[in-house]
Amino acid sequence: MNKKLLETVKQLSDIEDFKDVCHQQNEFTSMPSIDVLGEIVTLTRSILFPGYYGNAAVNSKSMLYHIGVNVDKLLVLLSTQIKAGLVFEKNTQDLPCNDFDTCSREIARKFIMQLPIIRQKLHTDVVAAFNGDPAAKSFGEVIFCYPGLRAITNYRIAHALLKLEVPLIPRIISEIAHSETGIDIHPGATIGEYFTIDHGTGVVIGETAILGNNVKMYQGVTLGAKSFELDVNGNPIKGIQRHPRIGNNVIIYSNSTILGTIMVGDGAIIGGNIWVDKDVAPGSKIVQRY
Amino acid sequence: MNKKLLETVKQLSDIEDFKDVCHQQNEFTSMPSIDVLGEIVTLTRSILFPGYYGNAAVNSKSMLYHIGVNVDKLLVLLSTQIKAGLVFEKNTQDLPCNDFDTCSREIARKFIMQLPIIRQKLHTDVVAAFNGDPAAKSFGEVIFCYPGLRAITNYRIAHALLKLEVPLIPRIISEIAHSETGIDIHPGATIGEYFTIDHGTGVVIGETAILGNNVKMYQGVTLGAKSFELDVNGNPIKGIQRHPRIGNNVIIYSNSTILGTIMVGDGAIIGGNIWVDKDVAPGSKIVQRY
Amino acid sequence: MNKKLLETVKQLSDIEDFKDVCHQQNEFTSMPSIDVLGEIVTLTRSILFPGYYGNAAVNSKSMLYHIGVNVDKLLVLLSTQIKAGLVFEKNTQDLPCNDFDTCSREIARKFIMQLPIIRQKLHTDVVAAFNGDPAAKSFGEVIFCYPGLRAITNYRIAHALLKLEVPLIPRIISEIAHSETGIDIHPGATIGEYFTIDHGTGVVIGETAILGNNVKMYQGVTLGAKSFELDVNGNPIKGIQRHPRIGNNVIIYSNSTILGTIMVGDGAIIGGNIWVDKDVAPGSKIVQRY
Amino acid sequence: MNKKLLETVKQLSDIEDFKDVCHQQNEFTSMPSIDVLGEIVTLTRSILFPGYYGNAAVNSKSMLYHIGVNVDKLLVLLSTQIKAGLVFEKNTQDLPCNDFDTCSREIARKFIMQLPIIRQKLHTDVVAAFNGDPAAKSFGEVIFCYPGLRAITNYRIAHALLKLEVPLIPRIISEIAHSETGIDIHPGATIGEYFTIDHGTGVVIGETAILGNNVKMYQGVTLGAKSFELDVNGNPIKGIQRHPRIGNNVIIYSNSTILGTIMVGDGAIIGGNIWVDKDVAPGSKIVQRY
Amino acid sequence: MNKKLLETVKQLSDIEDFKDVCHQQNEFTSMPSIDVLGEIVTLTRSILFPGYYGNAAVNSKSMLYHIGVNVDKLLVLLSTQIKAGLVFEKNTQDLPCNDFDTCSREIARKFIMQLPIIRQKLHTDVVAAFNGDPAAKSFGEVIFCYPGLRAITNYRIAHALLKLEVPLIPRIISEIAHSETGIDIHPGATIGEYFTIDHGTGVVIGETAILGNNVKMYQGVTLGAKSFELDVNGNPIKGIQRHPRIGNNVIIYSNSTILGTIMVGDGAIIGGNIWVDKDVAPGSKIVQRY
Amino acid sequence: MNKKLLETVKQLSDIEDFKDVCHQQNEFTSMPSIDVLGEIVTLTRSILFPGYYGNAAVNSKSMLYHIGVNVDKLLVLLSTQIKAGLVFEKNTQDLPCNDFDTCSREIARKFIMQLPIIRQKLHTDVVAAFNGDPAAKSFGEVIFCYPGLRAITNYRIAHALLKLEVPLIPRIISEIAHSETGIDIHPGATIGEYFTIDHGTGVVIGETAILGNNVKMYQGVTLGAKSFELDVNGNPIKGIQRHPRIGNNVIIYSNSTILGTIMVGDGAIIGGNIWVDKDVAPGSKIVQRY
Repeated sequence: MNKKLLETVKQLSDIEDFKDVCHQQNEFTSMPSIDVLGEIVTLTRSILFPGYYGNAAVNSKSMLYHIGVNVDKLLVLLSTQIKAGLVFEKNTQDLPCNDFDTCSREIARKFIMQLPIIRQKLHTDVVAAFNGDPAAKSFGEVIFCYPGLRAITNYRIAHALLKLEVPLIPRIISEIAHSETGIDIHPGATIGEYFTIDHGTGVVIGETAILGNNVKMYQGVTLGAKSFELDVNGNPIKGIQRHPRIGNNVIIYSNSTILGTIMVGDGAIIGGNIWVDKDVAPGSKIVQRY
Repeated sequence: MNKKLLETVKQLSDIEDFKDVCHQQNEFTSMPSIDVLGEIVTLTRSILFPGYYGNAAVNSKSMLYHIGVNVDKLLVLLSTQIKAGLVFEKNTQDLPCNDFDTCSREIARKFIMQLPIIRQKLHTDVVAAFNGDPAAKSFGEVIFCYPGLRAITNYRIAHALLKLEVPLIPRIISEIAHSETGIDIHPGATIGEYFTIDHGTGVVIGETAILGNNVKMYQGVTLGAKSFELDVNGNPIKGIQRHPRIGNNVIIYSNSTILGTIMVGDGAIIGGNIWVDKDVAPGSKIVQRY
Repeated sequence: MNKKLLETVKQLSDIEDFKDVCHQQNEFTSMPSIDVLGEIVTLTRSILFPGYYGNAAVNSKSMLYHIGVNVDKLLVLLSTQIKAGLVFEKNTQDLPCNDFDTCSREIARKFIMQLPIIRQKLHTDVVAAFNGDPAAKSFGEVIFCYPGLRAITNYRIAHALLKLEVPLIPRIISEIAHSETGIDIHPGATIGEYFTIDHGTGVVIGETAILGNNVKMYQGVTLGAKSFELDVNGNPIKGIQRHPRIGNNVIIYSNSTILGTIMVGDGAIIGGNIWVDKDVAPGSKIVQRY
Repeated sequence: MNKKLLETVKQLSDIEDFKDVCHQQNEFTSMPSIDVLGEIVTLTRSILFPGYYGNAAVNSKSMLYHIGVNVDKLLVLLSTQIKAGLVFEKNTQDLPCNDFDTCSREIARKFIMQLPIIRQKLHTDVVAAFNGDPAAKSFGEVIFCYPGLRAITNYRIAHALLKLEVPLIPRIISEIAHSETGIDIHPGATIGEYFTIDHGTGVVIGETAILGNNVKMYQGVTLGAKSFELDVNGNPIKGIQRHPRIGNNVIIYSNSTILGTIMVGDGAIIGGNIWVDKDVAPGSKIVQRY
Repeated sequence: MNKKLLETVKQLSDIEDFKDVCHQQNEFTSMPSIDVLGEIVTLTRSILFPGYYGNAAVNSKSMLYHIGVNVDKLLVLLSTQIKAGLVFEKNTQDLPCNDFDTCSREIARKFIMQLPIIRQKLHTDVVAAFNGDPAAKSFGEVIFCYPGLRAITNYRIAHALLKLEVPLIPRIISEIAHSETGIDIHPGATIGEYFTIDHGTGVVIGETAILGNNVKMYQGVTLGAKSFELDVNGNPIKGIQRHPRIGNNVIIYSNSTILGTIMVGDGAIIGGNIWVDKDVAPGSKIVQRY
Repeated sequence: MNKKLLETVKQLSDIEDFKDVCHQQNEFTSMPSIDVLGEIVTLTRSILFPGYYGNAAVNSKSMLYHIGVNVDKLLVLLSTQIKAGLVFEKNTQDLPCNDFDTCSREIARKFIMQLPIIRQKLHTDVVAAFNGDPAAKSFGEVIFCYPGLRAITNYRIAHALLKLEVPLIPRIISEIAHSETGIDIHPGATIGEYFTIDHGTGVVIGETAILGNNVKMYQGVTLGAKSFELDVNGNPIKGIQRHPRIGNNVIIYSNSTILGTIMVGDGAIIGGNIWVDKDVAPGSKIVQRY
């Protein structure tokens, strides 16, 4: 290291220089860890779909032990990460309970108690993917290697955590799926049963989108905001409905973009590569012309 | 763990609850491993393109030793994964030979014996990528860092394994490339020589697509099924031709979607962002209007 | 290994067979390492955004030590990789200084001295992402988990290295971001301040694209070449301007494709899913019809 | 690699050159793995002393799950290593059951069923170490960090496996303890309850040694063979009693050597640094003079 | 897992069966970790002997940064382990401060503040080893590869922690050295400057031993307790002086055993392989006869 | 980090404070790495005893490839470590060739060319261990798990490197064996064929010891220096013969100490626990009395 580098080090360490781009997590708490959250997702999947992920030796006789241990591990890891998320965004006085540790553990327990319901919903998604794809040979294959199901699993986990008011963590969990699959489902979206995404790369489902049951979509589909209202300071107003509502039994083909607070009615079919920013009548079918 | 969690554990371990979402691999065989398959792909690449991947110290004098050892390792790892795939989908009586171990090893050997031919085909793909990209400076750069070539390599490996009737494994290998590159080529597709994909994110090539020689495509291109016939129970019929045929010397620009059992003739050019579901005449050029 | 496999090994080791697909790095130098370059990116981020990445225990008192050590590590790792890139493409006589080691270290030092400026630019990108997304709750969240910012960070690092005439390495760094985020920004592109990409999967920004300040784009946007001139041998001519220029304050919605050496004027808005290959007037707004 | 090295490689690969120093394990079975055996020991300890080793989060409520999972893992890992040991030394026709897999699993099950008894014996050893050392503060401390107990644990595991006629593996397990602690107890030795070794480095207990209850020994003590009978070919005769018998309540101080098939009577005390090759009367005390 | 194994699992999980061999660490605190303590020792060595251990790239210009970062890391890791040790042995009411976290951090800080003094003492030990061994070529060699110095370093670290009343942790640190080097120095021993141990395997130095300056000893030397007084219940009385005092400038040759509360006077020389349980006059020399 | 810790950091970073305990390796060269040297030993063993260590899948057909690759790896790793050792102790002008890189590679090549001879010698050691131990069942068992053979292997490797005038590295290699086995053989010792050490913990063989063929020794045996001559400054004189010579066919029982430049004649037997500092006549037998 020569003189100039030493000066660069000093400049980069100047509080004025880094204060806007440096988050000061409380000194004795770690930042959320993307690696640990990845582990948490893997662990949760191994509880929801026992036998497919994680320890290959799981069999019916020892299922109780394995799920017990995995729930125990999940409780420990998830509590830590929830705490890291709470510390990232909140002060002690904003907490719904006495302290960060108690809150985190309580939320982790509530999440785990929802796993049977999450499994039921994912079961419907597996059925939908299997029925909808001529190439699928078994439920097993869908669970084991369909990226669509992987993204939906992360979404259902992240959505449950968001409902429990965990900050930051749900978003990171959905970004993990986004990076792996190219499918970006915001944890805030509301999605019914028997949901399936084929291929999936480039799919975007926005924060306030609402999807009915039995929706199928292909790669590159966007359910986005057309524009968003600004407040008097010119900043976007938070928490306003700004994404589409999709009815039941809707199919949306690849690379189409559905924008704004429109309604796509039950049973509608949206062809590929088109841009939709007006309501679509139930049962109608729209396609691009060339 | 409190009482409620213990009850949740019991519920999640109930056979009725998990039986549909749990694959029961034969007790003494492991599930296919995505990690090991990733290692197998890396190993195969290091045999096909010696010097670019894996041990950097390879030189011409010791090439024989390195390829010999890598083939030896590949034989061991691939046999295990092929076995895992066979056990996942088949019973002993469905096997073409006496037992899982013999079958798996035999198939692995046959695959390895095809590596020289696979290398020849990939060589044409490298040439095509180099010639087609003004930014490419050498074959080496193409092999070392072009995601298109990476996806095509995984496809050519997976396709060869599929032809050898290995279940599940080819699909996982193509999903590994899909996750890394955003390019989703079904192992069942038939693709000629001098194939090149630029940028590639969002490309989807379906199971029964057939591509001639010297095809070039850009990011976001879909060669998909328009719809698929249902059997009397309303389920999709498997194994029917349902994707496009693409002739020789065809270029397809970004984000276009070619759907159904249509034919795109030799030398055709498809512009970007359009949706094509009818035959395209040889030599013709179609573009979106706005 | 049986006889046939031994023959396959010999065939694959034949110099005629592998000479075109094997790069002969100088015997005593390693190939560039994607893993080490990933580490370099993580290290650089931890210097630019201290506290968010890497060691969670960083606090204001010890910031100087941590940045000092990270700069020291970066100097060592980056010098090695720059050398690997130089050896990959150049001979000693083509170097701007005496030998590979001296050159590599000098370039690494120059890069590090630019980090304060790179941090300033990235700060503007963080501000833009925060202001532009109603879902963003803090600068911290943007830096910690927005894939758009991750891709822009890799771009700004890679661009600085490209300007210092480092071969191959910038391209690998941008491919690392491409694989993680689906966003493919060529290191050669020129991009102004306050740049933001939302969702991002499928974005492609070509080598000679030029973007003004305050540009916002969504997933699936391509800034591509329409065609490129061939030389008398039918090969593409290198280094020619072939991508669009985008003015200041431009918004490009999802999945649109802007092609060729056109100009998109200041303040223009390009709707989603369209294909643009002609100049767009300042302040104008173009959308797809259906 | 130059010419001379290539010749060296050939010479080292000549079958005549390596045939005596190369074990040819059956082609499709691995050699025993010292790393996996180390893992097996750790796993067994975590079952025997739950809470001290391995997962720190074990608590009474989830004990059943954790022990269940650990037993399941142990069954899988141990079966593999037992098989590796059987293949190393035996042919199929020498097996007590149909094939290597069946035998290995059966032996692993029998071993696991002895764990409750092994735990009882080790409990007495913990009590003895605690009572005998003024520095010990709790049973916990003894279990957690006394090398003597670690060596005795490995011995009791290895001894049980030897009794089940597992080849090679018991020896490797005792060598793992030897390397960690400097205490070398042959798995064939017979050792009573309440056994304790203090400090322990250099202790050697031979294959046919027999120790009563409540024996205490210090570092450097040898219970060795004085000489061994040779057969007509001048080779040592296997399986003959050749080590000492030690009665109950005997103390042997540091660095003493007890040799041959002698008897050290109940309650005897052997001072440090002496060489004993004759019977020692019960209750007697022998010391070195200087 | 068959029926019998399930029964074994139940038996091993029975609270009566495991309660004596299971330490119940407070539910939300981990057990001390031997791996982390190994890391702590490595980190402390890299602070004491910068340049020899850990990051090889340390140079004088960046020394401040590296030591600063290592001290920061040490503070974090050591606080956690001290807490784990305190929780293992103490209740909150026994603590010298309000809670475990505060206490642990305070002790870790005090320890770090002693590092300059510990470095001074170790410097004298390096000098002694160098001067005393004809084979030593430089201070560097002694620090880098002499097991005696490694054991003494761990001892000086462990001794400082013991003086700060940290439970369990000092003992584990000395056992780490014991396992690596065969040298077992109790953290409670008192040892002067310029101390050196050659070869070292089998050396034992007891809890209440007191050594002057400039003591040299060889492999296999024991400074042990001859016997210890029992209380009315027949248990050893804790904390009583029971090991030898060794004066200044004493040499003890290999495999000798010095027992009990005797005094070995200044300048004495003890020959090898002998057993000493009486005072040795200053300047005298005792050897074994044969 | 509070104020006092910041002061401690400053003190520890003061050049006066650390200059004596800090080795300044040339800035761009790493220190020798104990981990890499451990890997080198494992690699060398896998060449010498193919099939026992390392890749379990080695079989006779592919032996040439595996040994070729391992020799290639060894050449790379060993060159680096030899360079690190040379830089540690020498200046460029002291080198026998032009620069560190050339020298290191040349020495590594010479070492590799000696491997066939080293294998022959180790073969005699295996034979001796097998013949001498009634418990040994096969050559395989001896090679796979006898610590004595492990220590002798490291010695024969280290001795060859020492003869090639490599500094520091031989010593570290023998310390690796010392730590694993408790056997400390100085690389400078001269040892004949058919050498065997049983159990081994505590064995020390000094730098100038000379052993004939067919020597057997047990745990705790020392071949040490009695005293060493000092120069006029009171420092030990380097390089003088100061350890015993042991003839052919000698047995030395456990824990005995042979000191000084004495001669133990052919066929002599030294009993256990004794201290010998005078010549021992050929064929004689000496024992301790009590």
